[in-house]
Amino acid sequence: MRIKVINPNTNRILTDRIGATARAVAAPDTEIVATVPEAGPSAIESHYDLALAAVGLLQEVRDGERQGIDGYVLACFGDPGLHAAREIASGPIVGMAEAAIHAASYLATKFSIVTTLDRMRIVAERLVVSSGMERHCRGIHVIDMSISALTDSRSNVKGPLIDACRKALHEDRSGAIVLGSGGMAGLGPGLSRELGCPVIDGIAVAVKLVEGLVSLGLSTSRVFDLAPPEPKAYSGILAPFSSE
Amino acid sequence: MRIKVINPNTNRILTDRIGATARAVAAPDTEIVATVPEAGPSAIESHYDLALAAVGLLQEVRDGERQGIDGYVLACFGDPGLHAAREIASGPIVGMAEAAIHAASYLATKFSIVTTLDRMRIVAERLVVSSGMERHCRGIHVIDMSISALTDSRSNVKGPLIDACRKALHEDRSGAIVLGSGGMAGLGPGLSRELGCPVIDGIAVAVKLVEGLVSLGLSTSRVFDLAPPEPKAYSGILAPFSSE
Amino acid sequence: MRIKVINPNTNRILTDRIGATARAVAAPDTEIVATVPEAGPSAIESHYDLALAAVGLLQEVRDGERQGIDGYVLACFGDPGLHAAREIASGPIVGMAEAAIHAASYLATKFSIVTTLDRMRIVAERLVVSSGMERHCRGIHVIDMSISALTDSRSNVKGPLIDACRKALHEDRSGAIVLGSGGMAGLGPGLSRELGCPVIDGIAVAVKLVEGLVSLGLSTSRVFDLAPPEPKAYSGILAPFSSE
Amino acid sequence: MRIKVINPNTNRILTDRIGATARAVAAPDTEIVATVPEAGPSAIESHYDLALAAVGLLQEVRDGERQGIDGYVLACFGDPGLHAAREIASGPIVGMAEAAIHAASYLATKFSIVTTLDRMRIVAERLVVSSGMERHCRGIHVIDMSISALTDSRSNVKGPLIDACRKALHEDRSGAIVLGSGGMAGLGPGLSRELGCPVIDGIAVAVKLVEGLVSLGLSTSRVFDLAPPEPKAYSGILAPFSSE
Amino acid sequence: MRIKVINPNTNRILTDRIGATARAVAAPDTEIVATVPEAGPSAIESHYDLALAAVGLLQEVRDGERQGIDGYVLACFGDPGLHAAREIASGPIVGMAEAAIHAASYLATKFSIVTTLDRMRIVAERLVVSSGMERHCRGIHVIDMSISALTDSRSNVKGPLIDACRKALHEDRSGAIVLGSGGMAGLGPGLSRELGCPVIDGIAVAVKLVEGLVSLGLSTSRVFDLAPPEPKAYSGILAPFSSE
Amino acid sequence: MRIKVINPNTNRILTDRIGATARAVAAPDTEIVATVPEAGPSAIESHYDLALAAVGLLQEVRDGERQGIDGYVLACFGDPGLHAAREIASGPIVGMAEAAIHAASYLATKFSIVTTLDRMRIVAERLVVSSGMERHCRGIHVIDMSISALTDSRSNVKGPLIDACRKALHEDRSGAIVLGSGGMAGLGPGLSRELGCPVIDGIAVAVKLVEGLVSLGLSTSRVFDLAPPEPKAYSGILAPFSSE
Repeated sequence: MRIKVINPNTNRILTDRIGATARAVAAPDTEIVATVPEAGPSAIESHYDLALAAVGLLQEVRDGERQGIDGYVLACFGDPGLHAAREIASGPIVGMAEAAIHAASYLATKFSIVTTLDRMRIVAERLVVSSGMERHCRGIHVIDMSISALTDSRSNVKGPLIDACRKALHEDRSGAIVLGSGGMAGLGPGLSRELGCPVIDGIAVAVKLVEGLVSLGLSTSRVFDLAPPEPKAYSGILAPFSSE
Repeated sequence: MRIKVINPNTNRILTDRIGATARAVAAPDTEIVATVPEAGPSAIESHYDLALAAVGLLQEVRDGERQGIDGYVLACFGDPGLHAAREIASGPIVGMAEAAIHAASYLATKFSIVTTLDRMRIVAERLVVSSGMERHCRGIHVIDMSISALTDSRSNVKGPLIDACRKALHEDRSGAIVLGSGGMAGLGPGLSRELGCPVIDGIAVAVKLVEGLVSLGLSTSRVFDLAPPEPKAYSGILAPFSSE
Repeated sequence: MRIKVINPNTNRILTDRIGATARAVAAPDTEIVATVPEAGPSAIESHYDLALAAVGLLQEVRDGERQGIDGYVLACFGDPGLHAAREIASGPIVGMAEAAIHAASYLATKFSIVTTLDRMRIVAERLVVSSGMERHCRGIHVIDMSISALTDSRSNVKGPLIDACRKALHEDRSGAIVLGSGGMAGLGPGLSRELGCPVIDGIAVAVKLVEGLVSLGLSTSRVFDLAPPEPKAYSGILAPFSSE
Repeated sequence: MRIKVINPNTNRILTDRIGATARAVAAPDTEIVATVPEAGPSAIESHYDLALAAVGLLQEVRDGERQGIDGYVLACFGDPGLHAAREIASGPIVGMAEAAIHAASYLATKFSIVTTLDRMRIVAERLVVSSGMERHCRGIHVIDMSISALTDSRSNVKGPLIDACRKALHEDRSGAIVLGSGGMAGLGPGLSRELGCPVIDGIAVAVKLVEGLVSLGLSTSRVFDLAPPEPKAYSGILAPFSSE
Repeated sequence: MRIKVINPNTNRILTDRIGATARAVAAPDTEIVATVPEAGPSAIESHYDLALAAVGLLQEVRDGERQGIDGYVLACFGDPGLHAAREIASGPIVGMAEAAIHAASYLATKFSIVTTLDRMRIVAERLVVSSGMERHCRGIHVIDMSISALTDSRSNVKGPLIDACRKALHEDRSGAIVLGSGGMAGLGPGLSRELGCPVIDGIAVAVKLVEGLVSLGLSTSRVFDLAPPEPKAYSGILAPFSSE
Repeated sequence: MRIKVINPNTNRILTDRIGATARAVAAPDTEIVATVPEAGPSAIESHYDLALAAVGLLQEVRDGERQGIDGYVLACFGDPGLHAAREIASGPIVGMAEAAIHAASYLATKFSIVTTLDRMRIVAERLVVSSGMERHCRGIHVIDMSISALTDSRSNVKGPLIDACRKALHEDRSGAIVLGSGGMAGLGPGLSRELGCPVIDGIAVAVKLVEGLVSLGLSTSRVFDLAPPEPKAYSGILAPFSSE
């Protein structure tokens, strides 16, 4: 099966890392497609970035439909445009945030999220609420590093990350950590070993979830609520989004 | 003061109607600016439309900042891109949905929403939740008319609308109606008289709210959560959204 | 239009201050009526005070109906008797707490309340819940000063208030402050400048809201839930509250 | 022990009925004191009535403190002034609504409330929320009879009441009924037999609860939140409520 | 009347203490039956213990039905098997947790729970949620002592308990304490005197509640939801639980 | 990898069906172990059955730990003993209810549950709450068939099931169906085709989830909350549950 893992920002190093993480966990017969969208912000670190990132996501899903994609992973913890993407994708699409948050609830009664920047806390909170896990998530912590710092090979990422995880486990009395950024792709297993508790990378979990849904023949409902949008004209720079 | 009322779809008839509604209720010294965004869907009737409509909204706010706008009204019941717009606008911005829903809570202990299409119910529900009014909103009803039908001069809008409002009041035992679409701009007072209860047009209420906030010198907080986004490159068709 | 701003305690200095605050923000053609109720506590600082303060509020609204009042502001953060007042007032009535709390949600994703005494925290909490803003309000802080201290010209109010606001912003990582007492009327703009973030005085916001509702022809619903009470006899000291 | 059962309206027939109900269930060594307050509405059937009824309740509690009362039952389903009364009573005070609602949760996983008038639904809803039992209460039904009809010996109360209970059990698939009015005092056991399920009269349950709390030496906390109000002057018709 | 107080673990010292506590508060004509179940864990200190403790509880209720028991108290703060027990008991059954938590809400607007071990916090949290009192319970604190330490006559229980209560009152600004373990039976009154606030022992409160319900003729509903289970075969060590 | 799928009742036909369903969806290198517990009810159709079924579940997990099991699926929609099992299993364990409910939230904004008997509705409700999906689940419907009827080869199961699903989709305006009983194992794909919307069998989804978690090296946290229980003596028929 072909699964497209969409990083809705335009950071190529990050996309490569996300692709590698997805490939490392995918089943032998799963092909992972990880591309950089043509349009989008270089990083997603504000509501402004999130709102605009939906454009690249939708481009990639539209392309995916022509590429014979069976399912999608949205590899951004903020889940920009997730419902919109569900309306136009024929296969299932799972966000890394919902995947990680629900998985955490199977592994611990309480968990904490560690994300990048202070201003992204509110986004993580929104996802905890929309995933229904307000009682399970006991805290949201930040390492105070931007995506560009996270993907800079000269950065010391692991130190601040382990410190933030330790602080989270101790202060929140949590049993597990959810990594709250696509920029932390691939860091789960190492952190798990170091901390002695589950550290959940939503990209890895979402790949397994989408593989599972596709293999079960389950995809987004076309009844009532997420049916494909009615054909309609789009203007200006959005003209390419008009229905053919 | 100058208030920009942004209809994030590209329907010109609707924009004119929204502008007229806003002007009819604005204070004598308020100038209402109502324009059609360059980019966007011809109507907002799906999550896909909502996600993409944020682009036109943000264009209009960016333009507004150069036009000396004092405050903004987001004239779409789905509130697309509202948080993003708050990050880049120097004046306050209020969504028609939150304005209408909170106003309803001052006028009745229970209210109902009447919106356009069945698939927009879920959007109205999300706004009720984000406005904190789940206990007050007792039902969401639809007239099953698209925006293009609503703005077609040959349509009989009033009949289905009154029927839906009557059904809502009766079934939900509600005391007030919230009009759940920018496409119903200007219909509040007439329906109020017909039904003998408050019928709330969020555009009108939002204009008064923004006038009030501006006159009090209150605008979006720049402390912590809604501070302006860090400068950053945007690619492709979104390049114009890069910081100068 | 005539708006009556009701301070339901009998502190004359406070009523004058509230009246001045209301007048300072009212539109040129709005007449503000601010009177001291005949019956009531000298300050509202307990549930006992709150319960009894409803009597003076209802007296003032009954009088207001004979005085041609178009709309009312309830200038006590505890909102005593608000629903009762809605049943008997022909114009809209907005409480300073709901007005401030909703306004805060338009200006910041998270806010804190600063109120007077420790025992009033629970009242502020109740209002946050009834306004639907539990997720937005991140903390309630006190300055530990009674209403009589707040209105004593020899008191240093500003120092403790700024300290409490700074503590609230820092500890709660909030973007805005809601002033949680009628006794803080008029202090919003100065604190805003000092703190560099929105500081919201509910009396000012409520005046603008009531002006807006009246100008839109919106008032309390008479359908179902807040219809005028059936005529009925009241005994003892409450005999004046019988229907004529 | 002496328990005062306070009906905060001035209907003497109702007070007698409430007193008789309380006496019928009280322990042999419990003395029930049931009096009519000097001030108050002849029935409680609106928010206006509820707000003013707190005055008579507080009068009765003040008197009770001089009469050596050990505990109080608030015999009105709307719980007017309950927190205020807790601040000034030395013994415990339990409202009939919270008592009945919590008892129902021990006897069934789902229950329904049957109350008097349509406009009192919203009051019953508020009590369900404040008692924390929103998931247990599956419906609120009315018999559409005023308190004066309920206490008129010529009225047929039982017929409409049984019909409403049957409808509630059937539609809500509930396992128990909570009687939602002091005016239904004493009707629980007969209805229980007729319907074959628990029918809970909050006055009876509250008497047993208060007997229990008093016998265990438990009363309202004086630490932090419900401490006695600070002494303070009250004006006008409320002057008698000043602290001595 | 005969009330069976069931300690679902097999600690005899604890059962004796629970029985003594129940007898000390029971009415003169109430007979308290307190026995040790044949099957069960020596203490309940994990979800594993809780799940298995339901077996002994159900044995005791089945026996109770042959012993002419009128009502039951479940003397374990974790409420294991409470709904199951309700299905098979003819009289009412109240858990010590729900009894204590609701009683606390009548005595204070905010309370804290003090329990035994860190890992039992999550169980106390679950009970606060199922009792509907999330807004009232402001904290859960532990003394870090096992049940076997609590019932060891050489242990100093009172010291850590008073320290934990003081910490809870101070940090949570709570007005009352709920004792969160059957192992603290009988310690309420002494702690109340020491701390100057209500300290609630759920076993004592539940005994009074069950006495009240039985005296009012109220028992578990047999309509719809908690009707007796259909007869059915049980295998293996559970064969004794088959219907006769 | 070896996954044990535990049907905690003793119905052999059902266990075989569950095993077959699991095998049909498992990856080629996954071995499915599906056994009948020695102790337990012949079907799970009450709280009484649920409480006792935890015994067989825990037996099977204890055995599984000696059998080199890598992960577990709890194949009963009531999730009996799930937290207890997590404390003693070294591999992850997922309940069919949480798996199905979360999967439904990825495929539709609203879903309905179809389960067996009226008295199991309340159990399904509890699981919706504990899974955090109260806003997504719009209704719970029953086919009014016992487990023994469901596994009787002479029964017409499909007819009532399709009728109930159609009713659910229509009345609740839902986009997907969750099958609310282990007794419906294997019926998902056929119903999906018939109804034209996703019909989710929690056993199939849980198998894929557990495969995913095991392949990612993720298992229940041993930090804080779900650590293995302290060794302890168990008495009577539960003696085999003592720690060795």
